[in-house]
Formats: sequence, structure tokens, C-alpha cells
Amino acid sequence: MASYVSMNWQSGLLSGNAVQHSSKALGALRTLFHDQEAAQKMPADLIVYTVQAYTPVPDGTEGGLFWGNTTLQPGKVGDEYFMTKGHFHDIRNRGEYYATFHGEGGLVLMGQNGVTRWEPMAPGSVHYIPGYTAHRVCNTGSIPLVFAACWPADAGHDYETVEREGFTARLVERNGGPVLVTSNGEEIG
Amino acid sequence: MASYVSMNWQSGLLSGNAVQHSSKALGALRTLFHDQEAAQKMPADLIVYTVQAYTPVPDGTEGGLFWGNTTLQPGKVGDEYFMTKGHFHDIRNRGEYYATFHGEGGLVLMGQNGVTRWEPMAPGSVHYIPGYTAHRVCNTGSIPLVFAACWPADAGHDYETVEREGFTARLVERNGGPVLVTSNGEEIG
Repeated sequence: MASYVSMNWQSGLLSGNAVQHSSKALGALRTLFHDQEAAQKMPADLIVYTVQAYTPVPDGTEGGLFWGNTTLQPGKVGDEYFMTKGHFHDIRNRGEYYATFHGEGGLVLMGQNGVTRWEPMAPGSVHYIPGYTAHRVCNTGSIPLVFAACWPADAGHDYETVEREGFTARLVERNGGPVLVTSNGEEIG
Repeated sequence: MASYVSMNWQSGLLSGNAVQHSSKALGALRTLFHDQEAAQKMPADLIVYTVQAYTPVPDGTEGGLFWGNTTLQPGKVGDEYFMTKGHFHDIRNRGEYYATFHGEGGLVLMGQNGVTRWEPMAPGSVHYIPGYTAHRVCNTGSIPLVFAACWPADAGHDYETVEREGFTARLVERNGGPVLVTSNGEEIG
């Protein structure tokens, strides 16, 4: 058999010879956080998240689909939760699913109009990310957040727009729980 | 919140106000089976499979995705396993994922060249169905077969081609296990 992939539904992890693995350490994510003083004090090699991907057709295949998962560690930089880089899809109308196995999180969504909102992630929650929507995940809990993803093989990842312009709001901890705040600290949800 | 959907990772089933439910009884599937004498003797109202679907964007939305699952009951018509209708996608290049939660099955795949093959389904198995490939699932075990699916919102379902022309091979039980056979009974896998 050319490729073999298996899901462990308990852990939410993939195994098999066709699974690709990657990780992001804090050093590659520092500039995303609001509190740069706190970010610079933290170790560059701290793994913030790992990704497993199953890409059975070439990247860019029209009509194809990719499958994967992310394990996002708990932690904060200042009052801001550890998070994924976040991206639009290169082909803007491409959607995606996230579905949560373990942990507690926040899916932060920003439309092309710049309006940012968020959805709480908890075990079993299924989230549809519509097209034209930048998406990022924050771990708002105290254990690793594990979630599956499925997205079109031709979607592509535009990380640059988010790196350059950021989201218009951030998920931070206030009074022990997550709150979405604008760049001047105003709570919006 | 407009819509709410949750996965039970133990059962493989969806819940929430946005989940659609449907079912197929034997009466609507009889003509698919090879042994018509056996098929006619079985009750028309016997439920062969049920489907749950989450379709957060309109059917036909380019770049959108749908999510769902199927519960296929165990059983046979003659020596042929209970199975789903099977379909090509209307937009032929659209792929799909199936991922198995419970039970034992066979994913039968037929390319547009008429070549049919199959992949065994078991708990945790992840199957990528490429574009241009008709797909059907058979329950080869003794308990309900439950699997998740994710597919493009604009894929569409062409059931008619399969109803008219069938697959070029069938999954039947011989010596207690599944074997793929051609219409003249020759074993091919």
C-alpha cells in the first residue's frame, strides 16, 4: 500500500508513513505578541505548537483535500495566550474545518472587513471557518489543545498579511478567563 | 449563536441544531444488489444506513466544505454486503475523506477507466478518495460501521451514473471474508 494513515480518536493524533510532522518554536512566533518585552525574555526554542498533516495529493490540486491536526501548548506571553500564526488562504474563498479533541481554546476569526470575533473551543466542538476569513487558535486552558483540520488542497496559506497587519483584536486573559480586546485594550467580546 | 455542532469522538456521531439527518431503507437500494431474488424477499422498510450532515454554507458554494458521518448497518443481500448507493461527484475532480470510528468495512473505489479496487476500513483508518473516483462503502462486519466524511460543498453527488452502470466489481463474502468479484464472479482482490 502506497500510504497508510490512521487516526487515534482518543488522542486526536495521526500515525502512518504518509504523515508529515512540523513544529513552531517561540523564536519564530515572538513578533506576533503584543507584549514584546515579555516575549523577548522567553526561550526561543520553546515549542509552542506541533502540526501533523496528511497531504495525499500535490499542494495546489484543485478539488483535493488535506487533513491534519495541531497540538498547541498552554502558556501566555504577558496576558496573551499562546497561539498559532494565523492565516488567510491564498485562494480567499477556501473554507476549513477545525474540530476539537482535547483542551480549551479560542478560534479567532477576522473577516476581510477587519472585524474580529471568536468561538470557544472545547472537546467535540466543530468549527466551520468560512472563506475570506483569517483564522488563528489560542490555547486558553492549562493542558495541550488538540484539534483536527480539513482544508482544500489548493487553499494555500497567506501568513504574510497577518504578520504585516495583525488581527484587529487579541485574545487575552482577564480575571482568569479569555476576553477579546482591541489594540488599545478595549474589551469587545 | 447561529449554529452549533459537536462531535462525539467516542461514538463518531454529531449533535447540534445545525445537523441534518437522513436515512436509506432497503426499498430504495434493492436494485443495486446482484441477487435480485434475495433482495425482493427482504423488507422495504429495513434501514440500511443513516447519514448526519453539517452544511454550513449553501450547496454548491465554491471553496466551502461539508462534514458528516454515515452509520451503515451490518447485513447481506445474498452474499453481497449491505452498502451505500455510491457516487461520483458532479464536479469530477472533487476529492473526499472518509475516516472510520467503529466496525469493519470496505471502501470500494472505481476510477473513470472502470477499474475497481477496495480498501479495508477499520477503527481509525483514514481514506482519501481522489477526484474522478466513484466511491461506495460496504459493511463487512457484524456491528454498525460508523465513519466520518468531509467533502467540498460544490462537489455534488452523481448517483445516476452508478445506478445506471454500476461498479465493475462487487464486494461479497466468500469463505467468511470479503472478496472483490467481477460481474461473472471472478475474484480480483
